[in-house]
Amino acid sequence: MALRHYTLDFKLSAAVDSSSTVPDLLSIFHEQEMTETVHETNGHGYLGTFVGKNGWLAILRVHSHGLVTVDLQCYEEDDFAQVDNLLNALESKLKVILNGLWLPALVRGAEVDRYWPTTDNRLVEYDMDQLVYEEDSAFQNIKILHSQQYGNALILDNDLNLAESDLAYTLAIMGSGRENYTGKEVLILGGGDGGILSEMVKQKPKMVTIVHIDQKVIDACKKYMRGTCGNILDNLKGDCYQILVEDCVPVLKKYVQEGKTFDYVINDLTAIPISMEPEEDSTWEFLRLILDLSIKVLHPSGKYLTQGNAENMTESLGLYEEQLGRLSCPVGFSKEVVCVPSYLEQWVFYSVWKK
Amino acid sequence: MALRHYTLDFKLSAAVDSSSTVPDLLSIFHEQEMTETVHETNGHGYLGTFVGKNGWLAILRVHSHGLVTVDLQCYEEDDFAQVDNLLNALESKLKVILNGLWLPALVRGAEVDRYWPTTDNRLVEYDMDQLVYEEDSAFQNIKILHSQQYGNALILDNDLNLAESDLAYTLAIMGSGRENYTGKEVLILGGGDGGILSEMVKQKPKMVTIVHIDQKVIDACKKYMRGTCGNILDNLKGDCYQILVEDCVPVLKKYVQEGKTFDYVINDLTAIPISMEPEEDSTWEFLRLILDLSIKVLHPSGKYLTQGNAENMTESLGLYEEQLGRLSCPVGFSKEVVCVPSYLEQWVFYSVWKK
Repeated sequence: MALRHYTLDFKLSAAVDSSSTVPDLLSIFHEQEMTETVHETNGHGYLGTFVGKNGWLAILRVHSHGLVTVDLQCYEEDDFAQVDNLLNALESKLKVILNGLWLPALVRGAEVDRYWPTTDNRLVEYDMDQLVYEEDSAFQNIKILHSQQYGNALILDNDLNLAESDLAYTLAIMGSGRENYTGKEVLILGGGDGGILSEMVKQKPKMVTIVHIDQKVIDACKKYMRGTCGNILDNLKGDCYQILVEDCVPVLKKYVQEGKTFDYVINDLTAIPISMEPEEDSTWEFLRLILDLSIKVLHPSGKYLTQGNAENMTESLGLYEEQLGRLSCPVGFSKEVVCVPSYLEQWVFYSVWKK
Repeated sequence: MALRHYTLDFKLSAAVDSSSTVPDLLSIFHEQEMTETVHETNGHGYLGTFVGKNGWLAILRVHSHGLVTVDLQCYEEDDFAQVDNLLNALESKLKVILNGLWLPALVRGAEVDRYWPTTDNRLVEYDMDQLVYEEDSAFQNIKILHSQQYGNALILDNDLNLAESDLAYTLAIMGSGRENYTGKEVLILGGGDGGILSEMVKQKPKMVTIVHIDQKVIDACKKYMRGTCGNILDNLKGDCYQILVEDCVPVLKKYVQEGKTFDYVINDLTAIPISMEPEEDSTWEFLRLILDLSIKVLHPSGKYLTQGNAENMTESLGLYEEQLGRLSCPVGFSKEVVCVPSYLEQWVFYSVWKK
């Protein structure tokens, strides 16, 4: 039984006497037969709480600087008309005073979580309506949630990775149509949702090797993210691809030792690194390690392609670009900002090459 | 002085005795020397409110079905470390019980409004940081807000119309690259931001006529939305275009009377119609009127292009498609879903042609 939390906010103009607005609003709560408590605020304006017999809680504050805030907590199952009447009554009393802001209710404690904040910590409500799958693997919590407009969405450790609507992500991390994969050797780190692989095989590459650590992610995507992977994950091996279910760090080290190189290395690992190697004890060290190993297995004329971060995370992006300047081999890079439908924030992608 | 409203929500597992969790949490508020009031809830669980000398308000509810909700209202200017300490203390006490949800704070009563709900009424927080321009014209309230990632955004009567990042909108309403405007006669209804015009003149059309009602919108966009319009709005008339600052309804009627036709009619009017004609007393009637007049001035082999609505507004989209079946002349149509960066919801665009 979820709680619906409504907020109504109004700013009083200087001309309005705030002490005269309170009695007007109080009458609305009294009509609902809610029990009133007036609190001592030590000079921080009027604060009244109102509790209904039905468990409703209303809070009215008239702050000393002229901001009026109203909160109403009721239950999802309550009569919506009754809730609406109360809020409309409040709004119409307050509207004569000044225009205000009535936000959509926060739904608290719902079965399916609809709030997945952006990387820069903004509150955004999704249209998720169903938990399709959830499991804890040896590496992470895996969830697949259904969204009305984005299809199924893969969420790893509470980080939204990709939804079925997000072909734009796949195309961007493949270089936005500027690269030609025909006849090429490609290494993909992560990429367990099969999105990149599914697009890439259309171009007839020589061999695509995916190194993904978590079999359970692959299995979940094979079943529930077919809008992203099509049928490509039905087999771990095909004419021009192989999926290795392994930690990518030892695999990369083996390739370095063997002197094996690739035309493209695509880093599609999740933002929060997962690895069992002891040396990667911080996000940045892991990132640097992967970058360094990737550049080592990159053919001199090859390209390293990766997602960066949200466009608003300017500090993190700056730090990442600093790392690019500290590799064992000098590199050049370009970046591009792309709108990935389900992300609700602009995302930066990088292309890196050896100088 | 804005209010920061934090919410922390936890679900108790059946195994946890809810009556034992309350004293544990109370101690945290007592340490802050907040004044406690315990409210009678008529069997709806525990409800305590806590008021600090600094004006802080905390609300602790343990609902009878095992949902624990904590609210904290403090001021934007308060010491962030102190706020964080309190919230962390609550979270760590609650975390031993069960995982919970700590959402980004709602900022209430801020100077710049960051909450612009989606068409399907979801709460989304934008990264708006500055009110660049605001004016009430004879027709509407015009605002231009600056967003960190979307550039300047045009907001008409509190409806986000377009941001400088939204070339995707312009390309979609022009037919996503499937149409060729070279040498063509084009009529644009609305379009005062200059986005379509700025793209279209690149293709050397014969003549583009824009009919836009509100000079103040054009002036604001000319100055503050140059990422969208470039310099095209600097002149109301050019070699291959003219901007008529008029109500489009009488203009359309005049064209019908004269028998004038266009290769393309692009309806870029705002979702909420503005017109001074008395016959359009409802949104749908206005919409039908515009549609009918537009189809009448459309060359038999021409195309009518328009934005529809959010993909999630399935009922509205269905009603719109019904209207298409009721025109004075039979039409065919196709639709496309496009991700417009600043919209934070998928948007539907229509192409309509005479059968």
